[in-house]
Amino acid sequence: MISIVEREPIPGPPARSASAAEHKITAMLEASGVRVGGERPWDIRVHNPDFYERVLAHGNLGAGESYMEGWWDVDALDEFFARILRSDSTSHLGTLDTLALSLYSRLVNRQSPERAQTVAHTHYDLGNDVYEAMLGRRMQYTCAYWQQATSLDEAQENKLRLIGRKLYLRPGMTVLDMGGGFGGLAQYLAAEHGCRVVTYNISKEQVDYGRKLCRGLPVRFEQQDYRKAVEEKSQFDRVVAVGLCEHIGYKNYRSFLELAHQLLRDQGLFLLHTIGGNYSETNTDAWVDRYIFPNGMVPSITQLGAAMEKLWVMEDWHNFGPDYDRTLRAWWNNFAQAWPRLRGHYSEIFYRMWRYYLLSCAGTFRARKLQLWQIVLSKGDLPSYAPVR
Amino acid sequence: MISIVEREPIPGPPARSASAAEHKITAMLEASGVRVGGERPWDIRVHNPDFYERVLAHGNLGAGESYMEGWWDVDALDEFFARILRSDSTSHLGTLDTLALSLYSRLVNRQSPERAQTVAHTHYDLGNDVYEAMLGRRMQYTCAYWQQATSLDEAQENKLRLIGRKLYLRPGMTVLDMGGGFGGLAQYLAAEHGCRVVTYNISKEQVDYGRKLCRGLPVRFEQQDYRKAVEEKSQFDRVVAVGLCEHIGYKNYRSFLELAHQLLRDQGLFLLHTIGGNYSETNTDAWVDRYIFPNGMVPSITQLGAAMEKLWVMEDWHNFGPDYDRTLRAWWNNFAQAWPRLRGHYSEIFYRMWRYYLLSCAGTFRARKLQLWQIVLSKGDLPSYAPVR
Repeated sequence: MISIVEREPIPGPPARSASAAEHKITAMLEASGVRVGGERPWDIRVHNPDFYERVLAHGNLGAGESYMEGWWDVDALDEFFARILRSDSTSHLGTLDTLALSLYSRLVNRQSPERAQTVAHTHYDLGNDVYEAMLGRRMQYTCAYWQQATSLDEAQENKLRLIGRKLYLRPGMTVLDMGGGFGGLAQYLAAEHGCRVVTYNISKEQVDYGRKLCRGLPVRFEQQDYRKAVEEKSQFDRVVAVGLCEHIGYKNYRSFLELAHQLLRDQGLFLLHTIGGNYSETNTDAWVDRYIFPNGMVPSITQLGAAMEKLWVMEDWHNFGPDYDRTLRAWWNNFAQAWPRLRGHYSEIFYRMWRYYLLSCAGTFRARKLQLWQIVLSKGDLPSYAPVR
Repeated sequence: MISIVEREPIPGPPARSASAAEHKITAMLEASGVRVGGERPWDIRVHNPDFYERVLAHGNLGAGESYMEGWWDVDALDEFFARILRSDSTSHLGTLDTLALSLYSRLVNRQSPERAQTVAHTHYDLGNDVYEAMLGRRMQYTCAYWQQATSLDEAQENKLRLIGRKLYLRPGMTVLDMGGGFGGLAQYLAAEHGCRVVTYNISKEQVDYGRKLCRGLPVRFEQQDYRKAVEEKSQFDRVVAVGLCEHIGYKNYRSFLELAHQLLRDQGLFLLHTIGGNYSETNTDAWVDRYIFPNGMVPSITQLGAAMEKLWVMEDWHNFGPDYDRTLRAWWNNFAQAWPRLRGHYSEIFYRMWRYYLLSCAGTFRARKLQLWQIVLSKGDLPSYAPVR
């Protein structure tokens, strides 16, 4: 469980005119079509007037933390975010905290193997009850594919089938699954395509879950950082990385793509499924970094393109970002529905944090600030590749 | 018509041991599975032993020029190239000439509006009889889409329909066509989708041809550099650039994508159809630069990705590079078939140059060293985009 109380205390607002801050933030919100105290679902209600100072001083981090503490509320948090982000009028609010994070990430490799453990502990080793309530039957903690689907379960089934079709699998093929999640993809590949799968994942909770899920199937779990796959004795017919790249960090994209290349047999295929950004950054949102995905960041086309050069041929680049909006809202609905059962084990602050996480992300995808990419790569030794949608 | 005799004379081979060069080149070819004097279609016959020195001294430029002059021959020139390129054993041969070109392209903007005229005169204003013989009914001088097609005409029809479907056209929409070719795309968009089209193209021959083709249709031709489109009075519902990007040059990608953005209405779509490379370069092959496309170069993912940042959302990136192999072979077959009619107006050297051009490019695509990309871009203000294949 994430323990918010262990964090250092948040400094109080500096000695500044509250009304000036209120005026500034209110004007910014108005420019985005959001009214303080308005009637529409995306209008906000401010319960603590210190909210304005805190957002001005700490940007996204201040907005998120003050939301968690109940200083403000909004019915349609996702739509609030979509509107704010579309208008870009508040983009400079992130400045202070994001700048510090940006400098820090340039100085150290935030996604070193040691630091990678942090995200496993704080996020993925959160009690599985939350994920079981939220993710649906296949326990897929990545974007679903909603084409011709009406429910989350159908859409996640669709996503697995889409990956299977894009990989042109045959029974007996070996697949390296870097990241692995709760083992749902490994199970699907082994049970429905007859593949032999090796999965690398640093989260103990996820690996324990996956081992149970895949009992009796030819799936080997390694509770190890993906970089340890370098020790594998033989190459694989296929390599997949679904939702791993967001944790890798821009300094490691090249070595990640080199590793996948080294571990892929000739004439093989590598499918990379990742959230993507519209431009190059070196860090994530400060609130998300602190509470949800420590040390995460999303790649850009430029960053991945540079990391691919002279290694890979890009066979297909599929963007279905808007499907993540729908996926996140489905997760939120599931979580909210399960809350009466879960509330004994989690605080109200956790509830608000989780809501802020899922719905702010949904709004970010709706505003098209984030994308969801499935990229199929080959070594350039295939006569051709037929893309699948 | 391209006049080869006006070029400066090619220097003779330097004073070097011919047998050493022969040994080196022969070994390189052997490593690629090509034998001098062998029996297979991709084995070569050397008629002039100076060939080895010339290739050693001038790389691709020497190979191409000595081919034009009849110093060597090969039945399956396309497959010869595919094998050479796949093995990479000769990649350092291009060194000398390519290096000079690379330095030069860094110092000057090789694709300035003034220099852009060069390619119009030397290539696109070549007699239309060659293109009419070669390109098929729709006069499409870009890659066809061969899915479910059995002839070049079907595949080019397919390509036009693919572009139409990707653009989600409605009657009355305005389309800016940057590059334009022989007007076949403008004709298709106007006649079959009811669009109003404006085309920018610097080639007089092409514009004259296009004006005839589009008589009576709402198509306006501007015989101008694409950069002149900045003077258009209103924005367009759609922007397309099919086969233009290869002439733009890496220094101009950003301003090109800015221009397209500026000229596209909100909620619009921009389709960019271009040859692409697997890694970033700043120039093209020295032979192609001299004889076929002066000042051309193909973009990489990294270069285009960087040029897109904070302007565009990449909605879809389709690669059908292997279709260019088939397209180029179809062009060659058409040309070879028409040669008895054409030979009165063109020299034997032109015939060999044209063969070298079409079949070496076919082999390059077959070896997967070049790709064909259709990239759909939006301003990030669409709720979603459904990709089409």
